[in-house]
Amino acid sequence: MSLHQYIRDIQDFPKEGIIFKDITPLLSSPEGTNECLALLINSLKGKKIDKVVGVESRGFFFATLLAHELNVGFVPVRKPKKLPFTTISASYKLEYGTDTLEIHTDAIKKGDRVLIHDDVLASGGTAQAVCELVDKLGGEIVQCNFLMELSYLNGRAKLGNHEIFAAMTYGADDKLHVADMKS
Amino acid sequence: MSLHQYIRDIQDFPKEGIIFKDITPLLSSPEGTNECLALLINSLKGKKIDKVVGVESRGFFFATLLAHELNVGFVPVRKPKKLPFTTISASYKLEYGTDTLEIHTDAIKKGDRVLIHDDVLASGGTAQAVCELVDKLGGEIVQCNFLMELSYLNGRAKLGNHEIFAAMTYGADDKLHVADMKS
Repeated sequence: MSLHQYIRDIQDFPKEGIIFKDITPLLSSPEGTNECLALLINSLKGKKIDKVVGVESRGFFFATLLAHELNVGFVPVRKPKKLPFTTISASYKLEYGTDTLEIHTDAIKKGDRVLIHDDVLASGGTAQAVCELVDKLGGEIVQCNFLMELSYLNGRAKLGNHEIFAAMTYGADDKLHVADMKS
Repeated sequence: MSLHQYIRDIQDFPKEGIIFKDITPLLSSPEGTNECLALLINSLKGKKIDKVVGVESRGFFFATLLAHELNVGFVPVRKPKKLPFTTISASYKLEYGTDTLEIHTDAIKKGDRVLIHDDVLASGGTAQAVCELVDKLGGEIVQCNFLMELSYLNGRAKLGNHEIFAAMTYGADDKLHVADMKS
Protein backbone atom coordinates (compact mmCIF):
# COMPACT_ATOMS: atom_id res chain seq x y z
CA MET A 1 0.00 0.00 0.00
CA SER A 2 1.34 3.36 -0.98
CA LEU A 3 1.22 5.02 2.42
CA HIS A 4 3.84 2.61 3.74
CA GLN A 5 6.44 4.28 1.56
CA TYR A 6 6.34 7.28 3.91
CA ILE A 7 7.26 5.18 6.96
CA ARG A 8 10.96 4.78 7.71
CA ASP A 9 12.40 1.82 9.62
CA ILE A 10 14.95 2.82 12.25
CA GLN A 11 17.09 -0.01 13.58
CA ASP A 12 17.70 -0.29 17.33
CA PHE A 13 15.57 2.66 18.42
CA PRO A 14 14.83 3.45 21.19
CA LYS A 15 16.82 0.39 22.25
CA GLU A 16 18.73 -2.47 20.68
CA GLY A 17 16.69 -5.08 18.88
CA ILE A 18 13.76 -2.81 18.15
CA ILE A 19 12.91 -1.55 14.68
CA PHE A 20 11.11 1.73 15.11
CA LYS A 21 8.53 3.00 12.61
CA ASP A 22 9.43 6.63 11.97
CA ILE A 23 6.48 8.73 10.76
CA THR A 24 8.43 11.94 10.15
CA PRO A 25 8.74 11.29 6.38
CA LEU A 26 4.93 11.07 6.30
CA LEU A 27 4.58 14.35 8.22
CA SER A 28 7.12 15.94 5.92
CA SER A 29 5.08 15.09 2.83
CA PRO A 30 1.88 17.07 2.20
CA GLU A 31 0.80 14.42 -0.32
CA GLY A 32 1.29 11.60 2.18
CA THR A 33 -0.37 13.57 4.97
CA ASN A 34 -3.37 14.43 2.80
CA GLU A 35 -3.77 10.83 1.65
CA CYS A 36 -3.55 9.51 5.20
CA LEU A 37 -5.96 12.13 6.51
CA ALA A 38 -8.46 11.31 3.76
CA LEU A 39 -8.29 7.60 4.64
CA LEU A 40 -8.94 8.32 8.31
CA ILE A 41 -11.83 10.68 7.51
CA ASN A 42 -13.38 8.26 5.02
CA SER A 43 -13.33 5.51 7.64
CA LEU A 44 -15.80 7.54 9.70
CA LYS A 45 -18.39 7.22 6.92
CA GLY A 46 -19.96 10.54 7.82
CA LYS A 47 -20.58 9.59 11.46
CA LYS A 48 -21.20 12.56 13.74
CA ILE A 49 -18.19 13.47 15.89
CA ASP A 50 -18.16 16.16 18.61
CA LYS A 51 -14.57 15.92 19.85
CA VAL A 52 -11.29 14.46 18.66
CA VAL A 53 -8.99 13.22 21.43
CA GLY A 54 -5.26 13.04 20.57
CA VAL A 55 -2.67 11.21 22.65
CA GLU A 56 0.68 12.77 23.61
CA SER A 57 2.84 13.31 21.65
CA ARG A 58 2.77 11.69 18.23
CA GLY A 59 -1.01 11.38 18.37
CA PHE A 60 -1.25 15.18 18.37
CA PHE A 61 -0.08 15.49 14.76
CA PHE A 62 -3.06 13.92 13.02
CA ALA A 63 -5.58 14.47 15.83
CA THR A 64 -5.42 18.25 15.29
CA LEU A 65 -5.83 17.72 11.54
CA LEU A 66 -8.77 15.37 12.07
CA ALA A 67 -10.50 17.85 14.41
CA HIS A 68 -9.94 20.66 11.92
CA GLU A 69 -11.22 18.60 8.99
CA LEU A 70 -14.31 17.60 10.98
CA ASN A 71 -14.69 21.18 12.28
CA VAL A 72 -14.89 20.02 15.90
CA GLY A 73 -12.84 20.60 19.06
CA PHE A 74 -9.49 18.98 19.75
CA VAL A 75 -8.72 17.51 23.19
CA PRO A 76 -5.19 16.55 24.28
CA VAL A 77 -4.56 13.54 26.53
CA ARG A 78 -1.22 14.09 28.22
CA LYS A 79 1.36 12.68 30.58
CA PRO A 80 0.93 13.58 34.27
CA LYS A 81 1.35 17.22 35.36
CA LYS A 82 1.26 18.63 31.85
CA LEU A 83 -2.39 19.68 31.81
CA PRO A 84 -2.98 22.76 34.00
CA PHE A 85 -6.70 22.48 34.81
CA THR A 86 -8.51 19.82 36.88
CA THR A 87 -7.80 16.35 35.50
CA ILE A 88 -8.69 12.71 35.87
CA SER A 89 -6.14 10.00 35.15
CA ALA A 90 -5.85 6.39 34.01
CA SER A 91 -2.85 4.10 34.28
CA TYR A 92 -1.72 1.26 32.07
CA LYS A 93 0.95 -1.41 32.15
CA LEU A 94 4.19 -1.19 30.26
CA GLU A 95 6.74 -3.97 29.78
CA TYR A 96 8.38 -2.68 32.95
CA GLY A 97 6.20 -0.65 35.32
CA THR A 98 3.19 1.51 34.52
CA ASP A 99 2.43 4.79 32.82
CA THR A 100 -0.34 7.30 33.43
CA LEU A 101 -2.35 9.60 31.18
CA GLU A 102 -4.54 12.57 32.07
CA ILE A 103 -7.44 14.50 30.54
CA HIS A 104 -9.09 17.76 31.60
CA THR A 105 -12.42 17.14 33.36
CA ASP A 106 -14.13 19.78 31.18
CA ALA A 107 -12.73 18.41 27.91
CA ILE A 108 -15.61 16.03 27.17
CA LYS A 109 -19.25 16.58 28.02
CA LYS A 110 -21.59 13.72 28.82
CA GLY A 111 -22.94 12.31 25.56
CA ASP A 112 -20.21 13.85 23.38
CA ARG A 113 -19.43 11.63 20.42
CA VAL A 114 -15.67 11.11 20.57
CA LEU A 115 -13.03 10.06 18.06
CA ILE A 116 -9.81 8.85 19.72
CA HIS A 117 -6.61 9.10 17.69
CA ASP A 118 -3.05 7.91 18.28
CA ASP A 119 -0.16 7.17 15.95
CA VAL A 120 0.29 3.45 16.70
CA LEU A 121 -1.90 0.64 17.98
CA ALA A 122 0.58 -1.82 19.48
CA SER A 123 -0.36 -3.83 22.58
CA GLY A 124 -3.33 -1.53 23.13
CA GLY A 125 -2.58 -0.42 26.69
CA THR A 126 -2.44 3.26 25.85
CA ALA A 127 -5.64 3.25 23.81
CA GLN A 128 -7.40 1.28 26.53
CA ALA A 129 -6.43 3.92 29.12
CA VAL A 130 -7.67 6.71 26.84
CA CYS A 131 -10.99 4.89 26.36
CA GLU A 132 -11.24 4.67 30.14
CA LEU A 133 -10.73 8.44 30.46
CA VAL A 134 -13.38 9.22 27.85
CA ASP A 135 -15.78 6.72 29.46
CA LYS A 136 -15.30 8.29 32.89
CA LEU A 137 -16.32 11.68 31.49
CA GLY A 138 -19.42 10.21 29.88
CA GLY A 139 -18.25 10.47 26.29
CA GLU A 140 -19.43 8.01 23.64
CA ILE A 141 -16.49 6.51 21.76
CA VAL A 142 -17.36 6.42 18.06
CA GLN A 143 -14.02 5.10 16.83
CA CYS A 144 -10.37 4.65 17.84
CA ASN A 145 -8.17 5.33 14.86
CA PHE A 146 -4.45 5.05 14.26
CA LEU A 147 -1.87 5.75 11.59
CA MET A 148 -0.70 2.16 11.92
CA GLU A 149 -1.67 -1.06 13.62
CA LEU A 150 0.82 -3.78 14.57
CA SER A 151 -1.74 -6.51 14.14
CA TYR A 152 0.47 -9.29 15.56
CA LEU A 153 0.43 -7.60 18.98
CA ASN A 154 -3.37 -7.94 19.06
CA GLY A 155 -4.05 -4.57 20.68
CA ARG A 156 -7.67 -4.86 19.49
CA ALA A 157 -8.29 -7.42 22.22
CA LYS A 158 -7.94 -4.68 24.83
CA LEU A 159 -10.40 -2.34 23.13
CA GLY A 160 -13.58 -4.36 23.60
CA ASN A 161 -16.28 -3.64 21.06
CA HIS A 162 -14.97 -0.24 20.05
CA GLU A 163 -14.70 0.38 16.32
CA ILE A 164 -11.05 0.46 15.27
CA PHE A 165 -9.44 1.76 12.09
CA ALA A 166 -5.79 1.99 11.07
CA ALA A 167 -4.53 3.69 7.91
CA MET A 168 -1.69 1.14 7.72
CA THR A 169 -1.30 -2.39 9.07
CA TYR A 170 1.89 -4.27 9.81
CA GLY A 171 1.53 -8.01 10.29
CA ALA A 172 3.79 -10.66 11.81
CA ASP A 173 5.27 -11.22 8.35
CA ASP A 174 6.86 -7.81 8.51
CA LYS A 175 8.92 -9.19 11.39
CA LEU A 176 9.02 -5.69 12.75
CA HIS A 177 8.68 -4.46 16.25
CA VAL A 178 7.80 -1.03 17.44
CA ALA A 179 8.56 0.24 20.88
CA ASP A 180 5.34 0.28 22.82
CA MET A 181 6.16 3.51 24.56
CA LYS A 182 4.67 6.97 24.49
CA SER A 183 7.13 9.71 23.74
CA MET B 1 -9.39 41.14 21.26
CA SER B 2 -11.76 38.25 20.79
CA LEU B 3 -9.19 35.43 20.67
CA HIS B 4 -8.19 36.13 24.28
CA GLN B 5 -11.55 34.81 25.43
CA TYR B 6 -10.37 31.30 24.56
CA ILE B 7 -7.34 31.52 26.88
CA ARG B 8 -7.85 30.42 30.48
CA ASP B 9 -5.74 31.69 33.38
CA ILE B 10 -4.61 28.94 35.76
CA GLN B 11 -3.31 30.15 39.11
CA ASP B 12 -0.12 28.63 40.53
CA PHE B 13 0.68 26.31 37.62
CA PRO B 14 3.15 24.72 37.21
CA LYS B 15 4.33 26.26 40.48
CA GLU B 16 3.16 28.79 43.04
CA GLY B 17 3.08 32.40 41.96
CA ILE B 18 2.76 31.66 38.26
CA ILE B 19 -0.40 32.29 36.27
CA PHE B 20 -0.41 29.87 33.39
CA LYS B 21 -2.12 30.63 30.08
CA ASP B 22 -4.12 27.50 29.22
CA ILE B 23 -4.79 27.14 25.49
CA THR B 24 -7.00 24.04 25.75
CA PRO B 25 -10.24 26.10 25.52
CA LEU B 26 -8.92 27.49 22.22
CA LEU B 27 -8.11 23.99 20.93
CA SER B 28 -11.54 22.81 22.05
CA SER B 29 -13.28 25.48 19.96
CA PRO B 30 -13.34 25.03 16.18
CA GLU B 31 -14.37 28.69 15.82
CA GLY B 32 -11.44 29.90 17.94
CA THR B 33 -9.01 27.55 16.22
CA ASN B 34 -10.15 28.65 12.75
CA GLU B 35 -9.92 32.32 13.68
CA CYS B 36 -6.45 31.91 15.16
CA LEU B 37 -5.26 29.86 12.18
CA ALA B 38 -6.56 32.50 9.75
CA LEU B 39 -4.70 35.23 11.65
CA LEU B 40 -1.45 33.28 11.51
CA ILE B 41 -1.87 32.49 7.81
CA ASN B 42 -2.78 36.09 6.93
CA SER B 43 0.37 37.32 8.67
CA LEU B 44 2.43 35.48 6.05
CA LYS B 45 0.98 37.73 3.32
CA GLY B 46 1.30 35.01 0.71
CA LYS B 47 5.01 34.46 1.31
CA LYS B 48 6.33 31.16 -0.03
CA ILE B 49 6.90 28.54 2.68
CA ASP B 50 8.45 25.10 2.12
CA LYS B 51 8.37 23.68 5.67
CA VAL B 52 6.63 24.41 8.95
CA VAL B 53 8.65 23.61 12.07
CA GLY B 54 6.65 22.99 15.27
CA VAL B 55 8.15 22.86 18.74
CA GLU B 56 7.34 20.09 21.26
CA SER B 57 4.69 19.75 22.54
CA ARG B 58 2.20 22.62 22.48
CA GLY B 59 3.74 23.99 19.28
CA PHE B 60 2.65 20.83 17.48
CA PHE B 61 -1.05 21.72 17.65
CA PHE B 62 -1.06 24.70 15.32
CA ALA B 63 2.13 23.83 13.42
CA THR B 64 0.44 20.79 11.87
CA LEU B 65 -2.58 22.94 10.97
CA LEU B 66 -0.36 25.64 9.45
CA ALA B 67 1.54 23.07 7.36
CA HIS B 68 -1.71 21.53 6.16
CA GLU B 69 -3.22 24.92 5.31
CA LEU B 70 -0.08 25.89 3.38
CA ASN B 71 0.10 22.39 1.83
CA VAL B 72 3.74 21.93 2.86
CA GLY B 73 5.64 19.51 5.07
CA PHE B 74 5.58 19.57 8.87
CA VAL B 75 8.80 19.12 10.86
CA PRO B 76 8.82 18.39 14.61
CA VAL B 77 11.52 19.83 16.88
CA ARG B 78 11.68 17.62 19.95
CA LYS B 79 13.30 17.04 23.31
CA PRO B 80 16.43 14.84 23.30
CA LYS B 81 16.13 11.14 22.37
CA LYS B 82 12.61 11.44 20.99
CA LEU B 83 13.52 11.69 17.29
CA PRO B 84 14.72 8.32 15.95
CA PHE B 85 16.83 9.37 12.92
CA THR B 86 20.12 11.33 12.87
CA THR B 87 19.71 14.66 14.67
CA ILE B 88 21.48 17.88 15.48
CA SER B 89 20.79 19.71 18.72
CA ALA B 90 20.80 23.17 20.27
CA SER B 91 20.70 24.10 23.95
CA TYR B 92 19.23 27.11 25.69
CA LYS B 93 19.19 28.52 29.18
CA LEU B 94 16.30 28.13 31.58
CA GLU B 95 15.86 29.91 34.89
CA TYR B 96 17.69 26.97 36.45
CA GLY B 97 19.90 24.92 34.16
CA THR B 98 19.61 24.34 30.42
CA ASP B 99 17.35 22.52 28.01
CA THR B 100 18.07 20.95 24.64
CA LEU B 101 16.07 20.55 21.44
CA GLU B 102 16.71 18.31 18.44
CA ILE B 103 15.78 18.20 14.75
CA HIS B 104 16.29 15.48 12.14
CA THR B 105 19.19 16.31 9.82
CA ASP B 106 17.08 15.50 6.74
CA ALA B 107 14.11 17.60 7.88
CA ILE B 108 15.18 20.83 6.19
CA LYS B 109 17.04 21.15 2.90
CA LYS B 110 19.46 23.97 2.21
CA GLY B 111 17.48 26.95 0.94
CA ASP B 112 14.11 25.71 2.26
CA ARG B 113 11.89 28.61 3.29
CA VAL B 114 10.87 27.83 6.86
CA LEU B 115 8.06 28.96 9.13
CA ILE B 116 8.78 28.31 12.82
CA HIS B 117 5.79 27.95 15.15
CA ASP B 118 5.44 27.63 18.91
CA ASP B 119 2.60 28.35 21.31
CA VAL B 120 4.24 31.07 23.42
CA LEU B 121 7.02 33.61 22.91
CA ALA B 122 8.24 34.31 26.44
CA SER B 123 11.92 35.01 27.09
CA GLY B 124 12.76 33.75 23.61
CA GLY B 125 15.28 31.05 24.53
CA THR B 126 13.37 28.23 22.94
CA ALA B 127 12.69 30.08 19.69
CA GLN B 128 16.32 31.16 19.51
CA ALA B 129 17.43 27.52 19.80
CA VAL B 130 14.99 26.47 17.07
CA CYS B 131 16.29 29.26 14.78
CA GLU B 132 19.80 27.94 15.43
CA LEU B 133 18.73 24.43 14.36
CA VAL B 134 17.11 25.68 11.15
CA ASP B 135 20.14 27.89 10.42
CA LYS B 136 22.52 24.95 10.88
CA LEU B 137 20.59 22.96 8.27
CA GLY B 138 20.71 25.86 5.80
CA GLY B 139 17.04 26.77 6.01
CA GLU B 140 15.87 30.34 5.44
CA ILE B 141 13.64 31.51 8.30
CA VAL B 142 10.70 33.40 6.82
CA GLN B 143 8.86 34.00 10.09
CA CYS B 144 8.61 32.85 13.69
CA ASN B 145 5.00 32.84 14.78
CA PHE B 146 3.25 32.18 18.06
CA LEU B 147 -0.21 31.91 19.50
CA MET B 148 0.76 34.48 22.11
CA GLU B 149 3.61 36.82 22.95
CA LEU B 150 4.41 37.98 26.49
CA SER B 151 5.77 41.27 25.26
CA TYR B 152 7.14 42.38 28.66
CA LEU B 153 9.63 39.50 28.63
CA ASN B 154 11.15 40.93 25.43
CA GLY B 155 11.77 37.58 23.76
CA ARG B 156 12.07 39.44 20.43
CA ALA B 157 15.49 40.68 21.50
CA LYS B 158 16.83 37.13 21.20
CA LEU B 159 15.47 36.60 17.70
CA GLY B 160 17.62 39.12 15.82
CA ASN B 161 16.09 40.38 12.61
CA HIS B 162 13.68 37.51 12.15
CA GLU B 163 10.10 38.44 11.37
CA ILE B 164 7.87 37.71 14.36
CA PHE B 165 4.10 37.44 14.58
CA ALA B 166 1.85 36.55 17.50
CA ALA B 167 -1.91 36.03 17.27
CA MET B 168 -2.29 37.43 20.81
CA THR B 169 -0.14 39.74 22.90
CA TYR B 170 -0.02 40.05 26.67
CA GLY B 171 1.70 43.16 28.02
CA ALA B 172 3.05 44.07 31.45
CA ASP B 173 -0.35 45.59 32.26
CA ASP B 174 -1.83 42.12 32.25
CA LYS B 175 0.36 41.46 35.30
CA LEU B 176 0.43 37.86 34.20
CA HIS B 177 3.27 35.45 34.09
CA VAL B 178 3.62 32.31 32.12
CA ALA B 179 6.02 29.54 32.95
CA ASP B 180 8.84 29.69 30.45
CA MET B 181 9.08 25.97 30.21
CA LYS B 182 8.50 23.48 27.46
CA SER B 183 6.16 20.70 28.34
